[in-house]
Formats: sequence, structure tokens, C-alpha cells
Amino acid sequence: MNPILQTIMNHRSVRSYSTEPVADDQIRRIVACAQAASTSSYLQAYTIIGVRDPERKAKLAELAGGQRHVASCPVLLVFCADLRRLELAAEMEGVRPDETAASLESTELFMVALIDASLAAQNAALAAESMGLGICYIGGIRNRLAETAELLRTPDRVIPVFGMTVGYPARTNNRTQSRKQRLPPESVYGEEQYPDSETLKQSLTSYNADISAYYRERTGGERADRWTEQAATRLRRPTRLDVKEILLQRKLPLQ
Amino acid sequence: MNPILQTIMNHRSVRSYSTEPVADDQIRRIVACAQAASTSSYLQAYTIIGVRDPERKAKLAELAGGQRHVASCPVLLVFCADLRRLELAAEMEGVRPDETAASLESTELFMVALIDASLAAQNAALAAESMGLGICYIGGIRNRLAETAELLRTPDRVIPVFGMTVGYPARTNNRTQSRKQRLPPESVYGEEQYPDSETLKQSLTSYNADISAYYRERTGGERADRWTEQAATRLRRPTRLDVKEILLQRKLPLQ
Repeated sequence: MNPILQTIMNHRSVRSYSTEPVADDQIRRIVACAQAASTSSYLQAYTIIGVRDPERKAKLAELAGGQRHVASCPVLLVFCADLRRLELAAEMEGVRPDETAASLESTELFMVALIDASLAAQNAALAAESMGLGICYIGGIRNRLAETAELLRTPDRVIPVFGMTVGYPARTNNRTQSRKQRLPPESVYGEEQYPDSETLKQSLTSYNADISAYYRERTGGERADRWTEQAATRLRRPTRLDVKEILLQRKLPLQ
Repeated sequence: MNPILQTIMNHRSVRSYSTEPVADDQIRRIVACAQAASTSSYLQAYTIIGVRDPERKAKLAELAGGQRHVASCPVLLVFCADLRRLELAAEMEGVRPDETAASLESTELFMVALIDASLAAQNAALAAESMGLGICYIGGIRNRLAETAELLRTPDRVIPVFGMTVGYPARTNNRTQSRKQRLPPESVYGEEQYPDSETLKQSLTSYNADISAYYRERTGGERADRWTEQAATRLRRPTRLDVKEILLQRKLPLQ
């Protein structure tokens, strides 16, 4: 395996960081790597906000549901879907707002921004990991999204979509711990077309057995969750149902 | 620069492929790398469809607006946002449909699926590039999204979001060609908060000068596009305004 495949396959979320700081130059490299990702039609429809200020991180940790590593990491990168920069570009070209509204308010362009932000983020994650840093994605910043957006002063047509904690892993991180096993490839990858239902069901059943064994081993038999059980539990508790309304308020109506 | 940073920074879209085939084992590795990416709450809400069949690729090339490399690449990977597998998981656990509808129809969970698919895709892209393959993202599969979904037989609650052509670069690809310069970092990265308007405007103005110079050089003075001009042109031509309706028809109403 080449070093890139190794770095990719060795990924684990790191939630506990040493006090060793992350240098500005490292952040610059991470941002440069983020920017090197593909971007739809050269639009580059995302912005990254780097947070180091302890008070702001503590506040964001609270907004994200009390995730302590958001406060304790040296740097939190917040990835935003950004259509404002494009709107500004059109303004600079003297284009009237009514000429750009249909694009800026479309589901399509929001998808472009979300995809651009995510591709950039995954480059950032791997760049950080290649330098010995650890990262953890923080979807929790969508828990109280309006407050998060206000705290980071994102304007209309921009919305934070996830965070990423960055820092050197604390020694207590056991990097050799078994990685949480992913779905069997045949349920995630289809040849020529979407996998058929029977294949899917069978592979989820065999996956359940593996996942249960994993939990049993890690908890001395106390837990034996099935993956389908976890998924079902999550679906029965709808979360963040206010996201649509917040997007609308911030001029991202997903038309 | 370590090999990972190098691979990331050397990325260029490859649109012309040699006839050298891509081995099944390479696809397996690429999929394994895709699966190694972070996933929100372990949901793994995406599916990849690998297309090698010449007729199906030709049809997809047509649906994507006549992009020839979609037909000529050895393999096209289509990344789908997938909430169907989660729905099936809940069904396997005996959960009633009315208990999961609010989650499955939420904007939030669609965003999760889109982010999961994109993080997986960027891992796949880098894995492919690390093996000497070239890739190109194909947003064009959203041009005629309903037909694309039908061709790939994606069920309700699943939608193809982009494609990725994969193959060995043809010798004619000039890998030393100048890479299209990205936005100045100060307009994409803000410290503690979103960049202020003045910084943004100034950096776009200086970026315009660089981009114009790039086009002038490459076209012997025939073109001198500004980035803001390209962005404005794109915004004035809204595209794929049917995406919202297609998502709704496929039970992804983004509530």
C-alpha cells in the first residue's frame, strides 16, 4: 500500500488532543490542500472559518451539544457552504439581483456548495493527518445552526455545514484500537446499477453480526448493538428539523 | 512536502484516458478508501455505482451534456446520496414507516447523505490518483437527473449526485500544464469569523487580474476572463432548476 492509501485507511476520529499548538503555517497548508480539491465550474462555493479563540470555541462546543473536544482542540475549522462570494462577484460585474436570484436560491446551487465544501474538507482532513495531526468532523454545529451562524458572522447565502477539530492526538489516544468496521462493500457498491434489495438485506444481516461482535468485545458483553438497530433508533428521533427554516431565513430557500 | 500533500496539490482533472484497463482490484481499493472516510453518526448514507458497460456509459455521457470522457473512461463511478439503506435498516427492525418519515424527509438528513457521499468521493479520488489513475468529477449527471436515476435503477430515497471518471491518463495529457489558480486564501479562509466585505472585494479584484493573465497567456490574448465575470455569467444562467422537483418525486422532499 502506498502512503496515501495508508493515510486514508488509517483514519480514525481523534477527540482528545495534546497541548502542542498547531502552527499558522500548518493551517495555511491545510487550507491550500482544501483549495486544491475539484470544484464545480470553478465556483469554489465554500468558506472555511478557523477558530482558535478559547471563548468562541467553548461557546461552539456548547452549541454543538457539549462536545468537549470542540473546546479543547487547538483549532476548529468550520466549513461553510457559501453562495455569498458568488453573489458579490455578480454585483462587482454590475449584474442586477433579480438576474441572479433564481440561481442563488436553487437547490442545485446549494448542492454544489455543499459538495464543494465537503471535497475541500476531506482534502483538509487528509492533509492534517499526513502531518501527524488528528481530526474529528463535527456535524453537531447544525444543532443550533442559527446561533452558530451568528457567532461566526456568516452573512446571508452562507451557512456553516460542519466543523472539524484539528490538533495533535493526546498520548491517551490508542491509535491501534480496532477501527469501526464499515458496511460490506457489496451494499455500498453496485455494478452497473443500484444493488438489489436481496443482496442489500443479506449483507446488512451479516454486517449486523460483525458489528454486534465488535460491541460485545469492546464492552465485555454489555452491548451488542446491531447496525440496523442503531440506524433505526436514529431515524425514529428526527434531529435538526429547523435546518430548512434557518436556510430559508438566510436566503438559501432551496427552490 | 510529504507524498500525501504532493498528491493533493498535484490534482488536475483528467478528461482523456488511455485504453489501459482499470483492474477490479483497483476499484475494490478505491471503494475501500471511500468507505474509510468519516461518516455522520456511522450512517454511511451513500452508495457508489460503478459503470463499465460501454452502452450505459455512452448513454450517461449523453445525459451529462455530451461529455465525451464519460463514454471513453474505463470506469465511471456514480456517487449517490442514499437514505434508502437506512430506511431498509429500520424496516428490518420492524419500525413503522410513519416513525421514520420525518427523518427521512428532512433537509438535515439529505445534507448528511450529500456530505457523506462527497467525503467518500474525495477519498476515492485521492486513492485513484495515488495509483497513477486520473479522475474528473461529473456534475453533469444532474443535467437530466430523473433519466440518470432511472438508468442506474436507484430506488426512492436515493439520488445520484455526481459522477467520477476514472482511468489512466492518455499520454496527451500534459501533466505539467499550469494548474488553474484558486481564490486567494484570505477570501476562502476567515480567522474567527467570516471574512469582511472589503477584504473579500479586494481579494477578488486581485484574483481577477491573475485569472485574466492566465487566460491571456493560454489563448495568446484571445480570452482574458475575470473570475467574477465567469461567476456572474454562471449565476445569470440558472441550471438544473428541476432538481428540487425530482428530489420530491423520489421521496427526498427536503422538509
